[in-house]
Amino acid sequence: MRYDQDISTDCKNRDCKGNLRVVLVETRNPLNIGASARAMANFGFQRLRVVNPYDVAFREARSAVGAAPLLQAAEEYASVADAVADCRLVVGTTSVGHRELQHPLRRLEFGARLIGRALTKSPVALLFGSEKFGLTNDDLSHCHWLMRIPTEPVDLSMNLGQAVALCLYELARDPKAATARPPKTIARAAAGETEQVTLRLLEILRRSGYINPVTEESTEEKVRRLVRRLDIAGRDVPVLLGMLRQILWKIG
Amino acid sequence: MRYDQDISTDCKNRDCKGNLRVVLVETRNPLNIGASARAMANFGFQRLRVVNPYDVAFREARSAVGAAPLLQAAEEYASVADAVADCRLVVGTTSVGHRELQHPLRRLEFGARLIGRALTKSPVALLFGSEKFGLTNDDLSHCHWLMRIPTEPVDLSMNLGQAVALCLYELARDPKAATARPPKTIARAAAGETEQVTLRLLEILRRSGYINPVTEESTEEKVRRLVRRLDIAGRDVPVLLGMLRQILWKIG
Repeated sequence: MRYDQDISTDCKNRDCKGNLRVVLVETRNPLNIGASARAMANFGFQRLRVVNPYDVAFREARSAVGAAPLLQAAEEYASVADAVADCRLVVGTTSVGHRELQHPLRRLEFGARLIGRALTKSPVALLFGSEKFGLTNDDLSHCHWLMRIPTEPVDLSMNLGQAVALCLYELARDPKAATARPPKTIARAAAGETEQVTLRLLEILRRSGYINPVTEESTEEKVRRLVRRLDIAGRDVPVLLGMLRQILWKIG
Repeated sequence: MRYDQDISTDCKNRDCKGNLRVVLVETRNPLNIGASARAMANFGFQRLRVVNPYDVAFREARSAVGAAPLLQAAEEYASVADAVADCRLVVGTTSVGHRELQHPLRRLEFGARLIGRALTKSPVALLFGSEKFGLTNDDLSHCHWLMRIPTEPVDLSMNLGQAVALCLYELARDPKAATARPPKTIARAAAGETEQVTLRLLEILRRSGYINPVTEESTEEKVRRLVRRLDIAGRDVPVLLGMLRQILWKIG
C-alpha cells in the first residue's frame, strides 16, 4: 500500500495514516517516548496517545528536540479504555512471553495488512505496553487481536522505540518496491568507450613490457574481457582515459 | 526468505544470517550501539563490527546488560576498509540528505532482497554512519551501492538503533507471512451452542418484558441474527451460558 503525503486533511482518502492512534501504555523512559514520536514522524503518522506515562518522562520527552510538534500534540489518558474509545479496531503488540494468550495472534507482516485495510475506513488503535512488562492482561482485554514482531525465539524483548518503528514501517511499506527496479541506475559505458579504455591500457601494458610479443594476441583478448567485466560506467570513462593518458605520457 | 535458526555453524546453508556484518561507523552514543546489538539478537544476526567508535561509548555499551554476548564478540576496526575487507558486497545505508549521491540507491524493500541473495554465497557488510553525519563520502566510496529506508520526505533523520532494526527486520521478513492465515485461530462456537445462548437470552428477554407478544416472532429473529453477528468463540459458550443461567435465576 502507498500513502498520500497529505493525509491529515481528510480521512476519506483510501490509505489513511491519519486514522492510526499509536497508544503508549505506562511508558517509563522519556527516550522511548521520543523515539516512538520520531518513528511516527519518519513514517508519516501523527496521532500519539499516552496512557499513564511517568509524568517526568512525558514532560522530558515533550521538551526534547526534534519530534516536538508531534509530542506537543500527544494526548494523555488515564486509562486504556479512554485512549481507544473512538477506535473501531484495537490491536495490542506483544513479544509473546510466557503468558497464555486469549487472543488471536498475528505476525506483523499479516497484521499490518489487516490494520492497513481497517485504516481506510475508521480509527485504529495500536497499543504498546511498558518497557518492563509489556501490555497487562487488563490492557489486552481491550484488544480485538494481538500482533507480534517475528523476532527470534530467544528470551529477549524488543526495545520499545524499535518495536514502534518496525510496526509503522510495515504499515508504510510498499510491497511493490520489493520487486521494482531501482529508480536510478548508472548508465554503462558504450562499447566504443570501453574499447578506448582497453586500447589505451593495452598500449601501456605493451610499452611497460607486460605483454609478451609471442602471446600478444591472447593477452589482448584476456585484457579486453577483463575490462568488460569491470562494467565501467559511462561517466567514469573520461576520468579513466585521463588517468591512462597520464600514465602513457610518463612511460613515454 | 526464511532463515534457519542455527546459522552460525555452517555458512553453506541457503539463507545465511551468519554472513552479515553489521558495521557501525564512528558511532557516538553507547545507547545506539546497545540498541543495534539488541536488534541483531532479536533478528538472529551475530557479527557486529565497529569502526572508530567513541571509546567511552563502546566500553559503556559493552558493559550494558542484555545484549552482552553479541557486544563482547564485537570486532573493532580503525578504518572502513579494514572492517569490510572480507566482504564481497558492501552496502551503505543513508537517509539521502542533500548530498549528491554517486551510487545506485535502492529502497530497503528491494535492497534487502539483493542482500539476502548475496548472503547465501558470501559475507556482506551493511554500513551505518554516525548519528550526526551519517556515512561520509569517504565511507561511501567503499560501498557498491546504497540502501535507503523509505521514510517521509521531511528533514528528519532516523534514529540509528531504529534504522538498524528496520534493515534487519526487512532481511528477516517472511513475505509469505503477509498473506498467510494466522497460525492460531479461535474456533467459532458450533451452531447448536450459539442457539443455546440465543434461547437462554430470549427466555430472559421474555421474562423481563422486553419482548412484545405481538411482534414476538420478528424480535426472535432479530435477536438470533444479532447473536450470530457476535461471532461467539466456542470456548466462551460455557461462560456465557453460566451468566445467562444466573440472570434467569435472578429474574425467576
